[in-house]
Amino acid sequence: VARFHCLTFLTDYGLEDAFVAVCHGVAAQIAPDLRITDITHLIPPGDIRRGAVVLAQAVPYFPPAVHVAVVDPGVGTPRRAIAVQAGQSLFVGPDNGLLSAAAEAAGGATRAISLTRAAMWRAADIPATFHGRDIFMPVAARLACGLPLESAGDPVEVSSLVTLPTPECRITAGTAHAEVVTVDRFGNAQLSLAGADASRAGLTPGAAVTVTWDGIAVTASFVTTFGDVAPGELLCYADSEDRVAIAVAGGDAARRLGLRPGTRVTLAAHGSVAPHPT
Amino acid sequence: VARFHCLTFLTDYGLEDAFVAVCHGVAAQIAPDLRITDITHLIPPGDIRRGAVVLAQAVPYFPPAVHVAVVDPGVGTPRRAIAVQAGQSLFVGPDNGLLSAAAEAAGGATRAISLTRAAMWRAADIPATFHGRDIFMPVAARLACGLPLESAGDPVEVSSLVTLPTPECRITAGTAHAEVVTVDRFGNAQLSLAGADASRAGLTPGAAVTVTWDGIAVTASFVTTFGDVAPGELLCYADSEDRVAIAVAGGDAARRLGLRPGTRVTLAAHGSVAPHPT
Amino acid sequence: VARFHCLTFLTDYGLEDAFVAVCHGVAAQIAPDLRITDITHLIPPGDIRRGAVVLAQAVPYFPPAVHVAVVDPGVGTPRRAIAVQAGQSLFVGPDNGLLSAAAEAAGGATRAISLTRAAMWRAADIPATFHGRDIFMPVAARLACGLPLESAGDPVEVSSLVTLPTPECRITAGTAHAEVVTVDRFGNAQLSLAGADASRAGLTPGAAVTVTWDGIAVTASFVTTFGDVAPGELLCYADSEDRVAIAVAGGDAARRLGLRPGTRVTLAAHGSVAPHPT
Repeated sequence: VARFHCLTFLTDYGLEDAFVAVCHGVAAQIAPDLRITDITHLIPPGDIRRGAVVLAQAVPYFPPAVHVAVVDPGVGTPRRAIAVQAGQSLFVGPDNGLLSAAAEAAGGATRAISLTRAAMWRAADIPATFHGRDIFMPVAARLACGLPLESAGDPVEVSSLVTLPTPECRITAGTAHAEVVTVDRFGNAQLSLAGADASRAGLTPGAAVTVTWDGIAVTASFVTTFGDVAPGELLCYADSEDRVAIAVAGGDAARRLGLRPGTRVTLAAHGSVAPHPT
Repeated sequence: VARFHCLTFLTDYGLEDAFVAVCHGVAAQIAPDLRITDITHLIPPGDIRRGAVVLAQAVPYFPPAVHVAVVDPGVGTPRRAIAVQAGQSLFVGPDNGLLSAAAEAAGGATRAISLTRAAMWRAADIPATFHGRDIFMPVAARLACGLPLESAGDPVEVSSLVTLPTPECRITAGTAHAEVVTVDRFGNAQLSLAGADASRAGLTPGAAVTVTWDGIAVTASFVTTFGDVAPGELLCYADSEDRVAIAVAGGDAARRLGLRPGTRVTLAAHGSVAPHPT
Repeated sequence: VARFHCLTFLTDYGLEDAFVAVCHGVAAQIAPDLRITDITHLIPPGDIRRGAVVLAQAVPYFPPAVHVAVVDPGVGTPRRAIAVQAGQSLFVGPDNGLLSAAAEAAGGATRAISLTRAAMWRAADIPATFHGRDIFMPVAARLACGLPLESAGDPVEVSSLVTLPTPECRITAGTAHAEVVTVDRFGNAQLSLAGADASRAGLTPGAAVTVTWDGIAVTASFVTTFGDVAPGELLCYADSEDRVAIAVAGGDAARRLGLRPGTRVTLAAHGSVAPHPT
């Protein structure tokens, strides 16, 4: 039976209420020595897609862990509560697609259960609105302590788990058609285009790129890092997740260009730019 | 002598300055192995009532712990610094009512001291404005390590501790008169009406409820959970603390209705609503 | 070889993305038992000066630790990545001045290296934009585990490390000329004037002080603590860092007066104020 030393926690609970601490307290009662790392609790309320993106970004850097994630606008509807094994890690949360990209990033789901065994919850008779406290965290803490997955509920088919639609990405005639997947604090807009695929659209370091969206077109330099352009200039680059991203050196590209998750963008290389004098 | 493995920390210090980390550092010097859980540091500056509510919401879910709370607009006035025992836990902070509801939730204060023993502070000669760093956290860390309560200062009468006024709640002629106690990140407005008392005002699942405040009246459904109404609809329900709350499914009730802590609300049941088709 | 039980972490990464958690995960893989304390991640993007101030405020209260700080607008330029020993602690981050005040507060830098040894990074072949994840945190975690400083890179002269300009502070003819160094959550404006030097400008408890900036002048009371003035009144005092600060009792001085980091202020004592009746 696997035991875990690390549990991560991602929600849309915010940081101003007691919700997050309550879940930490529940875990501390069950597993006093468990190390809990908060990924973020600032997912916009109910934004499953954003929660899925951030969770999938964080998970590959952790040792084997129990990952608890709760962005759950459907709490109180018949959506399932699940635990999923992927690679050597477990994922616990609602079955609404939130866990799917992270499980994929961890090697793909190999087993899943529906958290139907009430004896593993905080109490058998629970309110209907705070499953993070009453179901997800207590079950996760018990799994971290070595409870076998199958003891927490009934098996479900991995193929039946809810997944989110994959963001669009096509490369045709040297032009990449992609989608903004997420925007970070710095205003960098990460696209659905993998860095490894960029060269197929002519996007190589030194290329000048026409970025088009919503009928607007601007020119950016495709470079390796921020230092390759002058402050205030627009750049495209393969980011730290090896996704193509649009940024402004020392500025906020998403705000400047009005890019948001879901915005459809085309990138077309049209020659090379003069190198920025260092 | 009791030792504690868990210390919680709630303040209005915010997250952008060094204040919280400084207190963590002070605790780490005294008790290197102590597990510190931050409840929140986003209490609005000086808002004792909000701090008291959030602390009381979190405390019942923790194992026996030392709970440190600092929302202290009176720092530098003669208000007392105190440590209070309630149940198996200790509460450390200013004697301004901040700790009272949490101590009550932990079983009621049974002993209290005034933190007059300077040898237990960070240093005997301290500035007058940062008691979290200089008095509350060092005393709390020593208590967590097993320092007996009576060694940290002089006994005070439990009955002399400052308490906050209890929010109004009356039920007359089938109508509940209550107060908004707190509003959470999702805009759910928690009332001073206990879920267990709701039925005395005719508030039972399926009832239609007229909610009135400041001369405005709206109709909501009294239901068990968010999934029982359509998205965007107003609902009343017994929340995860078993308090009646007003919410909008997938929306922000407090913003939509203009409800704030302290707003007086009446709830009157007037029949039953048609069930929401699932 | 020194081992450290405590690692602190300060960045401008924000709390809504996965950046901070990714770094925690990287550290957990290398040093599973290491205690990580987040100082803050809300340094405004790229604001090296603010990062330096907050880091220097926090560091003196920690036991010997590895302090990792990343506010790094020059990532991808030839700026050095460094580790610095000061006192019994180590500082890891970019060589852009961010670490300098904190190293000074820890006793002054005595040794430094450039993090050139790629075998100590997360991987030898790393993207160019996320050095917190790929260089600073993995090297710091290895140092915390006992890696000797000299094994992480090539020695550099301590005198070659980048430092930030010291904020202006002069006392002439009984008037202090100082600069706002930082503004905290409560709107208290900390000046570059040490509390210990205040009396040389006639600033002693009870003095009335004319505060002048940008051609505006107001009067404040120089007092020991907030409780010495009435709510809403302006005060000057030696703050918890023993720096002279400007505040409003129960209010936000920086907002009310329009003070910001870098604002130049003069303080001139001109007699004593009537004591505030308690």
